[in-house]
Amino acid sequence: MRTFMDEDFLLFTDTARRLFHQYAEDMPIIDYHCHIPPREIYEDRRFDDLTQVWLGGRNADGTVFGDHYKWRLMRANGASEDYVTGGMPPYERYLKFVEALEKAPGDPVYSWCCMELQRFFGFDEPLTLKTAKKAWDLASDKLRNDPDLSVRGIIKKSKVRMIGTTDDPADDLVWHDRIAEDPSFETKVYPSFRPDKAINIDKPGFAEYIGRLAQSVGKKSLNSAEDVRGALIERLEFFASRGCRASDHGLDYVPFRPAPVSEVEDVFKRAMAGEALSRDDADKYKTFILTALGRAYSRLGIAMQLHYSCSRNVNARMFRLLGPDSGYDMIGQESCGAQIAAFLSALDETGECPRTILYSLNGTDNDMLVSLAGCFQSGDIPGKIQLGSAWWFMDTRRGMEDQLRSFAQGGLLGNFVGMLTDSRSFLSYARHDYFRRIFCNLLGEWVENGEFPADEDVLKSIVRGVCYENAERYFRL
Amino acid sequence: MRTFMDEDFLLFTDTARRLFHQYAEDMPIIDYHCHIPPREIYEDRRFDDLTQVWLGGRNADGTVFGDHYKWRLMRANGASEDYVTGGMPPYERYLKFVEALEKAPGDPVYSWCCMELQRFFGFDEPLTLKTAKKAWDLASDKLRNDPDLSVRGIIKKSKVRMIGTTDDPADDLVWHDRIAEDPSFETKVYPSFRPDKAINIDKPGFAEYIGRLAQSVGKKSLNSAEDVRGALIERLEFFASRGCRASDHGLDYVPFRPAPVSEVEDVFKRAMAGEALSRDDADKYKTFILTALGRAYSRLGIAMQLHYSCSRNVNARMFRLLGPDSGYDMIGQESCGAQIAAFLSALDETGECPRTILYSLNGTDNDMLVSLAGCFQSGDIPGKIQLGSAWWFMDTRRGMEDQLRSFAQGGLLGNFVGMLTDSRSFLSYARHDYFRRIFCNLLGEWVENGEFPADEDVLKSIVRGVCYENAERYFRL
Amino acid sequence: MRTFMDEDFLLFTDTARRLFHQYAEDMPIIDYHCHIPPREIYEDRRFDDLTQVWLGGRNADGTVFGDHYKWRLMRANGASEDYVTGGMPPYERYLKFVEALEKAPGDPVYSWCCMELQRFFGFDEPLTLKTAKKAWDLASDKLRNDPDLSVRGIIKKSKVRMIGTTDDPADDLVWHDRIAEDPSFETKVYPSFRPDKAINIDKPGFAEYIGRLAQSVGKKSLNSAEDVRGALIERLEFFASRGCRASDHGLDYVPFRPAPVSEVEDVFKRAMAGEALSRDDADKYKTFILTALGRAYSRLGIAMQLHYSCSRNVNARMFRLLGPDSGYDMIGQESCGAQIAAFLSALDETGECPRTILYSLNGTDNDMLVSLAGCFQSGDIPGKIQLGSAWWFMDTRRGMEDQLRSFAQGGLLGNFVGMLTDSRSFLSYARHDYFRRIFCNLLGEWVENGEFPADEDVLKSIVRGVCYENAERYFRL
Repeated sequence: MRTFMDEDFLLFTDTARRLFHQYAEDMPIIDYHCHIPPREIYEDRRFDDLTQVWLGGRNADGTVFGDHYKWRLMRANGASEDYVTGGMPPYERYLKFVEALEKAPGDPVYSWCCMELQRFFGFDEPLTLKTAKKAWDLASDKLRNDPDLSVRGIIKKSKVRMIGTTDDPADDLVWHDRIAEDPSFETKVYPSFRPDKAINIDKPGFAEYIGRLAQSVGKKSLNSAEDVRGALIERLEFFASRGCRASDHGLDYVPFRPAPVSEVEDVFKRAMAGEALSRDDADKYKTFILTALGRAYSRLGIAMQLHYSCSRNVNARMFRLLGPDSGYDMIGQESCGAQIAAFLSALDETGECPRTILYSLNGTDNDMLVSLAGCFQSGDIPGKIQLGSAWWFMDTRRGMEDQLRSFAQGGLLGNFVGMLTDSRSFLSYARHDYFRRIFCNLLGEWVENGEFPADEDVLKSIVRGVCYENAERYFRL
Repeated sequence: MRTFMDEDFLLFTDTARRLFHQYAEDMPIIDYHCHIPPREIYEDRRFDDLTQVWLGGRNADGTVFGDHYKWRLMRANGASEDYVTGGMPPYERYLKFVEALEKAPGDPVYSWCCMELQRFFGFDEPLTLKTAKKAWDLASDKLRNDPDLSVRGIIKKSKVRMIGTTDDPADDLVWHDRIAEDPSFETKVYPSFRPDKAINIDKPGFAEYIGRLAQSVGKKSLNSAEDVRGALIERLEFFASRGCRASDHGLDYVPFRPAPVSEVEDVFKRAMAGEALSRDDADKYKTFILTALGRAYSRLGIAMQLHYSCSRNVNARMFRLLGPDSGYDMIGQESCGAQIAAFLSALDETGECPRTILYSLNGTDNDMLVSLAGCFQSGDIPGKIQLGSAWWFMDTRRGMEDQLRSFAQGGLLGNFVGMLTDSRSFLSYARHDYFRRIFCNLLGEWVENGEFPADEDVLKSIVRGVCYENAERYFRL
Repeated sequence: MRTFMDEDFLLFTDTARRLFHQYAEDMPIIDYHCHIPPREIYEDRRFDDLTQVWLGGRNADGTVFGDHYKWRLMRANGASEDYVTGGMPPYERYLKFVEALEKAPGDPVYSWCCMELQRFFGFDEPLTLKTAKKAWDLASDKLRNDPDLSVRGIIKKSKVRMIGTTDDPADDLVWHDRIAEDPSFETKVYPSFRPDKAINIDKPGFAEYIGRLAQSVGKKSLNSAEDVRGALIERLEFFASRGCRASDHGLDYVPFRPAPVSEVEDVFKRAMAGEALSRDDADKYKTFILTALGRAYSRLGIAMQLHYSCSRNVNARMFRLLGPDSGYDMIGQESCGAQIAAFLSALDETGECPRTILYSLNGTDNDMLVSLAGCFQSGDIPGKIQLGSAWWFMDTRRGMEDQLRSFAQGGLLGNFVGMLTDSRSFLSYARHDYFRRIFCNLLGEWVENGEFPADEDVLKSIVRGVCYENAERYFRL
C-alpha cells in the first residue's frame, strides 16, 4: 500500500516519478483561465480561516460566493443550507464539510483539499473528522499570519507567471491596470474577454446589458447589431492593449445559423423591444456576433475558448434564493459538433480562424471534438485548434485521463496547452500539480509499456511543453 | 494467475480483500427492486433442474418466461428458438446454453452462473461442456431435495432482509398479505408501485387497462385524467399500507410538458376514444400523472425510481411470436436530462420532490445524471437524489465500475444505496456478492493508491453503508 | 520497464503471451474490408521510399492520395501543406512527419509505423528524429530491391488469404479478373459492393452517377428508382459471381423511412431534374434502395456492412483545394439506433435479414449497437449480427479495447469476426498483429483474474476463431 498522498502521489511507475520530479514539478504555472477577482490580487487579500477560503458565504443581497464544488458535496450529504453557504458559525460549517468529505472516496475534492493542506499549510495527514481540529487551527494561524498566505504570497509560492482572469467587455480593467503598475508584483495578470451577456440575446437582462456596453464605449445607446459588433470589437482592442490573450465563451450550446444582416438587425430590434425570440432567431444574432468576434480574435492573436454543454440554474427555487454560480448547474446534452465545424469552416474560408480551444462539459464529446479540431489545423502554430483540459464536472482524475487519452489518440498530445484552474479559489493552484502528476503518470505508462520510446530528450520536451512551454507559445507570452 | 473464482474473486489488493471479508461479505441483503413473483415465495416453489431455474420456458399462450440475458447469449451463438425458450428436452437446452457460455469471456453471465453454482450447489469448477454433466447432476439433485434450495430456502440462505417486488397498481397484493401473515418467514416482502400501464397513454391496451384500474378502486369506469390520478393515489396509499417503500417507472424517455388541466383532459378523452396521439399530446397527460405521483411519493416517503432509455420489442416478428420480455430490447438514445431536471425542479418548487433514483440504460448518461442529482439534494436525507446501480445491459463488471466512478466523482459515494438484482431469477442474489466485490475492490484501489485515507472507521462505515445501511435508511426499514 | 515494442509488445501477462504466441501470431489474415487498389496488386507495384508508401502525394488534378491519418498528425504539428501532401522533396516531408510523430505518445500511428519498420524492414529501433535517417536508408533500399517488398511480396509475407477491396457497382472488376486468372498469386482478391453513390440522392453528382450505372448494365438511362434497384441487383449478382462476400455502406446516418413506391419514384424524378430534396424525401428513396439491397444480400449470402456517424469534408476551403479523403472528416453525432433497428426488423419480417456488421464512428454508440445486434440474431449462423471492429478514429488501442469489452459484455465475443485494416496502405497488415495482441491481452486478463476458465481447448478455439476462423465461416471462404 502506498503512503497517503506522499511525494509520489499518483505516480505509479519509475518513469512517471522520474518525469514528474525531474521535469514537471518545478515548472512555473500559466493559469490562462480562472475566475479570481483581480481586485483581491491588487489588495493582497488575506483570509481568516479555512471556511472563508474554502466555503465562502453570502453577500448582503442573499447571493452567494465561494466554491460550489464543496457546497454540492455538503448538500449531497444532507447538510442544510445554513451550513453550506452560511448562517452557522465558521467552524461548524467546516466540520459539516469534513463530515461530507469523509464519505467521498473517488472525489477529486478530497485530493484537492489534502493537497492544499500539504502545500500551503504543511499539514500532511488525511483530513477526517479526527484530524479536522488540528488542520483548522494550523491553517487559521497561517492564513492570518504567514506572509506566504496572502493572495500574492500564494501566487508567488505557486510560481504563477501569468493569470488570465475572466472579465466582462464593459469592465474598465482598473484593477488590472493597478496590478500592472505595481513593480513589486511580477506575475502578469491579463484580462480574458467574456462577452456572454452581449451574445445571450434570449436571456433576461439583455437590453439592460447592451446599455452598459454602450456606456463602456462612450455612447448613450447601441441601436443595431452592427453597433453591438462595433462596440465589442472596440472593447476587445482595449482588452488586447491590456494584455488580453484569450477570450472565453460560456455557451449552453454552440449556435451556427448565418443569416442576412437585415434579418439579424430585425431580431436585435425585437429583442431590444422585449419580444421573446425563437431559438432560430436568437441563433441568427449569436452567429453574427460570434463570427465577427472570431475574425477579430484571429486578427489580434487572441485565443477563442468555447465552453459548452452546461445547463445552468436548473433548480428554479434555489436559483431564486441564491442566484447563479451557487451549485445548481448540470452537464448538458447538446450535440454541437456540426455547428462548431461549420463555424470554424466559415472563419477558415477567409483565413480568419483564430486559435481555438474547445471544451464540452459532456465528456462523451471528447473524441468528436478531437476529430473536429484536426480538420482546422494550420501552419500558423502547432496545435492551433485543440480539445481543452477536462473541465468542471469532468475535472477529476478519470476525467483528465479520458481527456488526455482522447487528445493523444486523435490529436498530438505533445502540443497540448495543458491545465488551467477555472477556479474561484486562490488555493487551487494545487490542481496544476494534480494534473501534472496524472499527465506524467500516463506518459510514463506508455513508456514503461514499450509503446513510446524512452528517449530522454523527447520525453523532456513533451513534459515541459504540456506543463508550461506550449501555453507560453500559444498565448504569446 | 489467480485461481478461478476463489474466495478472493475480483479482489485485487490486500485492502480490497480485507474490506470485503471483514465488512461486506456477511452483511444481509436489501433487494429493493426485483421482478420475482410473490406467489412463488408464499408457495415456497421448488425447481426440477438448472434449465427450469436458468432458462424457463413457454406459457400455454406461446409467451415466454425466464431469463432473457441467457436467451440472448444462446441466440448470439446461433441456437434455434426450440433450444432457447423451449421445445427441446431440458438437458439438451442446458447443453446448448453451456456451449454459448464457453464463448463468452467478458460476459457477466459467465460469472453469475458460476457464482450461483458455487454458492447454492457447492460446485467450484468452471462451467464448460466438459463439466456440464457433473454440474447438472449435482444441481438437479439439490434443487429437488435440498431444503436450502426451495425459494424460501434460497432467500434465507442469502440473508435477504427485504424484497421489493414489482407490482401493478391494480394488483390486490394478496400474496404479499399471505406472506406477511406467515410467522415462519422473516424476510419482508414489500410491493413496489409500477404504474407504467396507467401512464403509457400512447400504447395499445391503455383504455382496457384504465378499466382494470377502475375496478381496483371499486368503480365502473374512470372518466377523466383527474379520475385516473385519484385512483392511482388511492392505490398508492393501499400499497403504502402494505409496506411499499418504492415506486418504479419504466419509461422509453422521461417526458416533461406541463399543460392546463383542460388540455390534459382533452388528450385523455381522445385516447379513450381510440384516437392516435402525437408525442406532445401524450406527454401532457404523462406529465400530469407523473407530477401528481411525484408529490404523493414525497408525502408518503416512497422513493421514486425512474428507469429510462430502453427501446422495447424492437424485433416485430419475434414480438408477435413470443411477447414482451423475451430478449428483444435494446439501449435507447433519448437525451432526457433537461426534462428530468425540469420535472424535479417543478416538484421541488413546492417542497414535494421525493427521494429519487435515476437509471438510464444508456451508460453515456451517467455523468450527466450524477450532475443532475446534485442539483436537487436537500436536508431531508443524505443522498436524496442519486444515480441508480448499473442496470440491465450495463449490469456488468465494467458497467458497475463506470457507474461507481461516476457516482464517486460527482456525487458522494458513501451515501449510495447500492445494489439491487432487478431479476426474475431466485438464484440471482449472487449478484449482490458480485457487486460488493467490485465495490470493495474499487474502494481498496483508492486506499492502496494513497488517494483516500486508510482510516478503518471511515472505511468500515462506507462499506457497511453502501452494502446495507444506506438502503435501510433510504427505504425506511 | 518493458523493452520498446519487443516480441511481447502489449502482452502484459503470461497467459496473454502464451495465447498470442501459440495461437494468434501465425494465423493467416482475412482482410475483409480495405481500400487498396486491385490494379496495384495485379501489377505488383513497388515503392521508392517511405514517403511514397506512407505519405503519398498529389494527383495531376490537385486531389491527393495517401494516408490521411499521417497527414492529420503533420497538420496538428503546424506543418504546411507542401510538406503534408506534397511539393517538398520526399525526405524533407518524411522528416516533417517524424517530427510530428515524436510528439505523439498515445497515438496508434506511432505504434503502426514502428511495427511496419520492424516487420517489413527489420528496423527495431524507435523512430525519432535521431533514428530517422537510418530508417529511411534501410527502407528505401528494401522497398526498391527486396522481392518481399513489392505489393505481392508484402501480401504474401503477411499471410493474407483473402482481401476484400472496396468497389463501385459500376466497376467492371477487370483487375479482379486478371488477378483471379494469374495462377502465380494465391491470395483471393474479392470485390466488395459499395453503392454509396447510387444511394446519396441528395449529394452533388447523383444524376451523373446514375448515368454511369446505366452504362454498366448496358442501358442508356435509368428512368426510375425501380430501374436503379434493378441495375444495382444486376451488378450485385455480377459482383457475387466474382467472389464478392460483403457489401459496404458509408453513411452519414442510417435512414429508415418506408414510403409507397409512388412517393419514392416522385422523389427520384425530382432529384434527376436537379431539385433539392428535404431530408425526409431523400430518406424515402434511400430506404427503398437499402431495403432492396438488404434482401438481395440475404439471398446471395453477402454480409452487409453499415458504417455511419462520419461527417465528411467539413473544412470547405480545404475540400475545394484537395478533394475528399484528404483528412478533413470528423466523428458525427447521429443517433441512429432506432432507425437501424427498424430497418433490420423490416428485413427480418420476411426472413430476409442478411448477415450484418454495424460500425459507428462514434464510440459512444458501441454498447447500444451490441444491444441492437442481440435483437436480430438467428439460427442461420453464430454471430449473424455484430458490432464491427473499432474503426478509423476509434482504431486505437483504447478504441479496440472499448469495442472488445462492449462486444464481450453484451454479445458473444467468441463469435467476433475480428479485425480488418480498412486501409489505403499496403503495409498496414501490421494492424492485424496490433489487434491480435490487444485481443489476446484482454482475454488473458480475464483468465489471469480468474474470471474465465484457463481451459486450453476453450481458449484456443476462441483465439483462432476471432483471429481467423470466424471470418472464414462468416464470409463463406
